[in-house]
Amino acid sequence: MRILGIDCGTRFTGYGIVDTDGRAHRMVAAGAIETCAKDPFPSRLACIAGELRELIRRHAPQAAAVEEVFYAVNVNTALKLAQVRGAALLVIAEAGLEFGEYSPLEIKTSVVGYGRAEKRQVQTMVRSLLHLDRELASEDAADACAVAICHATRRTETSR
Amino acid sequence: MRILGIDCGTRFTGYGIVDTDGRAHRMVAAGAIETCAKDPFPSRLACIAGELRELIRRHAPQAAAVEEVFYAVNVNTALKLAQVRGAALLVIAEAGLEFGEYSPLEIKTSVVGYGRAEKRQVQTMVRSLLHLDRELASEDAADACAVAICHATRRTETSR
Repeated sequence: MRILGIDCGTRFTGYGIVDTDGRAHRMVAAGAIETCAKDPFPSRLACIAGELRELIRRHAPQAAAVEEVFYAVNVNTALKLAQVRGAALLVIAEAGLEFGEYSPLEIKTSVVGYGRAEKRQVQTMVRSLLHLDRELASEDAADACAVAICHATRRTETSR
Repeated sequence: MRILGIDCGTRFTGYGIVDTDGRAHRMVAAGAIETCAKDPFPSRLACIAGELRELIRRHAPQAAAVEEVFYAVNVNTALKLAQVRGAALLVIAEAGLEFGEYSPLEIKTSVVGYGRAEKRQVQTMVRSLLHLDRELASEDAADACAVAICHATRRTETSR
């Protein structure tokens, strides 16, 4: 199965496309969609949505996974992020993809085996699980791969 | 000019399409898009986006206006609402519409002349400003018309 993981952000939205049998995973593509802070917010959403649609068209994933929205540090940041997430979920629904959402705790537990893992540990484990020569340059891309891997393992667990 | 006002909500998203010269306004269409609480959240966003696109196709507004996102009562409600707003802004950007966003204070001041006006007063003033026989049945539709009227008047003020 091919899974698209998305790490929503207003400036950088990470993506990671992973092929998986539920145990072994292989990276197909990963990176980050950058939007220009000067552009009007609706145009930035259109940029993110357009790139996500193009990734789906090119790589044809069967499922998509996104981190749950939550209120962490700043309420305005959280509300902006939630709007990006809304645009991403719309793209996922309109592409007819299977959808999974996971808390940061679930994602870290699934990738590192420990819910309070640091960003750094997530990157290292993503590298190891995807058999990459080096860590992904973009932290957002690594986080997106992590949520894809989380969906891969959770899916297998629940279908057992 | 024809303006589409949108009042985002997870259960009911109000819309109001208003023709205006900046002073006199006429209602073209108004109502609410209802989504089913049992449906997965991404499907509900797709339902709202699909209906908004159909309204834009049918009525060809030149501009769209939406209330600013803000954290009012419950953070989870605000984060859900923000995701709906993200989907709506994506539709607006992709339709190439002029875009305006206003705080509840600006909308109430523009429609009722008083920023702390009650919901009821907004409905009464929307009825009066749009020369309707009776008040709009849906509060969400009335709120959507109010944001459209706000954009109509604000636009005229700033272009003077």
